[in-house]
Amino acid sequence: MGRVGSLKPIITKLSKFEQDEGCVMHGIKVSDSNFNGFGEAYFSSVNYKKSKGWKLHERMTLNLIVPFGKIRFIIHDALDNSKIITPVLDITLGENNYSRLTIPPGYWVAFKGAGLKENILLNVADIEHDPDEAINKPLNYFKVSGYEQS
Amino acid sequence: MGRVGSLKPIITKLSKFEQDEGCVMHGIKVSDSNFNGFGEAYFSSVNYKKSKGWKLHERMTLNLIVPFGKIRFIIHDALDNSKIITPVLDITLGENNYSRLTIPPGYWVAFKGAGLKENILLNVADIEHDPDEAINKPLNYFKVSGYEQS
Repeated sequence: MGRVGSLKPIITKLSKFEQDEGCVMHGIKVSDSNFNGFGEAYFSSVNYKKSKGWKLHERMTLNLIVPFGKIRFIIHDALDNSKIITPVLDITLGENNYSRLTIPPGYWVAFKGAGLKENILLNVADIEHDPDEAINKPLNYFKVSGYEQS
Repeated sequence: MGRVGSLKPIITKLSKFEQDEGCVMHGIKVSDSNFNGFGEAYFSSVNYKKSKGWKLHERMTLNLIVPFGKIRFIIHDALDNSKIITPVLDITLGENNYSRLTIPPGYWVAFKGAGLKENILLNVADIEHDPDEAINKPLNYFKVSGYEQS
């Protein structure tokens, strides 16, 4: 586990157009420079102060977008869980930071609800869900600097 | 305008998995029987009692999913705006009806916010946004039976 390749996580700022009736928010399109193919789009919601993780995908590239609420993402590539790990990325997306987070295979990812109301992420993944390509570890498996697993 | 082919709009019930931390909600994947290719994924939100429409896509197939709130969709294939039109489909998606609505090219579509809080739709479209393939008409252009344009 922790087979990290040469690719790093990428943050891409997305456009949001406010209108009287609501708004239009960009997500991802085939001509985007880091688009990697389409396999599946699904949503995951996370309640305030609740966390999901850790998960490492061996083949899937994730494209994470938070259209509603706020979600804090912690990403690392540690192989050794005996030490305190410094995250590769610690970022909150959603309100105030409408961006797409692209995570190549080989990173450990956890995320936490940071908005008081519902917090929703869309993952536009390059392959379909396949439990055989993901490794799960409980939240307390890694100790990450600055990140409290509650 | 109104070049309706032989394809009809399709409603596909989607799975939603409740967990302690939040939930996971299916969207669309390449192996779905009516998947038509991926061009772009974007969000559109619509405030309570506000409407967006009418729009007809000449080439784009829409896959509409409402992960948050409730949105009422009205679809018709009328060529003649002088008569009162009976909709092909009049359906509310979101809370209580988590489904994907696939709309082939050639239909007029309008939608209205039906939830008191934010109402969000994801469109997973088979082509990228292209203003040249869409026709817009104001909401009062068509008179649709049972649908008040406000």
